[in-house]
Amino acid sequence: MDAKLKILLVGGQGTLGKAIAGELGSRHDLLIASRNKGHVKMDMTDVDAMRQAFAQIGKLDAVICAAGGVTFAPLDKIDAAPLATSTYAFGLTNKLMGQVNLALLARDHLNDNGSITLTTGVLTDQPIVAGSSASMVNGAIEAFVRAAAIELPRGLRINVVSPNVLIESMDHYAPFFRGFEAVPAARAALAYSRSVEGRQTGQVYKVH
Amino acid sequence: MDAKLKILLVGGQGTLGKAIAGELGSRHDLLIASRNKGHVKMDMTDVDAMRQAFAQIGKLDAVICAAGGVTFAPLDKIDAAPLATSTYAFGLTNKLMGQVNLALLARDHLNDNGSITLTTGVLTDQPIVAGSSASMVNGAIEAFVRAAAIELPRGLRINVVSPNVLIESMDHYAPFFRGFEAVPAARAALAYSRSVEGRQTGQVYKVH
Repeated sequence: MDAKLKILLVGGQGTLGKAIAGELGSRHDLLIASRNKGHVKMDMTDVDAMRQAFAQIGKLDAVICAAGGVTFAPLDKIDAAPLATSTYAFGLTNKLMGQVNLALLARDHLNDNGSITLTTGVLTDQPIVAGSSASMVNGAIEAFVRAAAIELPRGLRINVVSPNVLIESMDHYAPFFRGFEAVPAARAALAYSRSVEGRQTGQVYKVH
Repeated sequence: MDAKLKILLVGGQGTLGKAIAGELGSRHDLLIASRNKGHVKMDMTDVDAMRQAFAQIGKLDAVICAAGGVTFAPLDKIDAAPLATSTYAFGLTNKLMGQVNLALLARDHLNDNGSITLTTGVLTDQPIVAGSSASMVNGAIEAFVRAAAIELPRGLRINVVSPNVLIESMDHYAPFFRGFEAVPAARAALAYSRSVEGRQTGQVYKVH
């Protein structure tokens, strides 16, 4: 009954990306993009290279991003600085503008009624120490998604998934996320299915 | 009964700034900062000049920002681009990092238990056409404020006021905000009083 969709999954080699591929890969044609491996090499901070990659891939039905880095630093180690030299520059360049640029390129390469799904995280709402860059960037992406949703042409949709910290990542992240109810990556992956295979737009799917 | 506070109000010459000055000026010592006039000249994109200004002013009890510009542009006129040349660069540099840097400098110049109050707007939650930069920046600031609140030292507090479009601005903005319930600047100004003269931190005061 469902149509088979051609989906570009950026960050498909990460913990979350692999779970998304597991959820959607059996029903759809997945193209995995990653900085180092996968079907398509894609560095989200290199707009020209991303543009070339989209041109080579051709038309798509959905673009998912499960990639994007930020800087974790205690606030008392962060000084006022111009954007270019700020502690916040990496997150704004990488996770924020990387995903925004991916969405803008996707807009121009998606079939009618296609979808864009970005990724934020629980820190938009529930901050942790040293997480101000992550919170800032996540808040920016979620509000951008609500705004872009009302302006996208041709029935295109855009949503964002905000997962809690993943159980699979707790080996590394547990000390930063004490008391957070970690979720399995497979549960977070369901929200990407809702975004791609549902019909809503402008949504923040919280998997908290 | 209330203590008289020494308050720096950045953007004190604007519509909102004048209303905030009207609300707080009778009870406290206000220093008005503005790009062009006021007691202190302050360009929020010039971090070195802001740092010098804070050093000259000396200790403060509260810093309020009612300034910050973004670019209004239809999404279909915005192309993928590196941050530095992006349509989004102005808002990220000016309203976002301008306010974040002001907050970081304020942190170092506020007396114990002092407060920082930033400004976003209704577009975080309720987008309009051509407003994706405003939404992005507002979302970033609100999440930054929640995060910074849990890390500020010495009892310092930080909040943000999100006003609806102001009645006083509707001559100019009405075509962009059809159907929005515009609020008087004096009503928005009350939220700044709550932030400065109350005790909460990490709050988004919505005046919608």
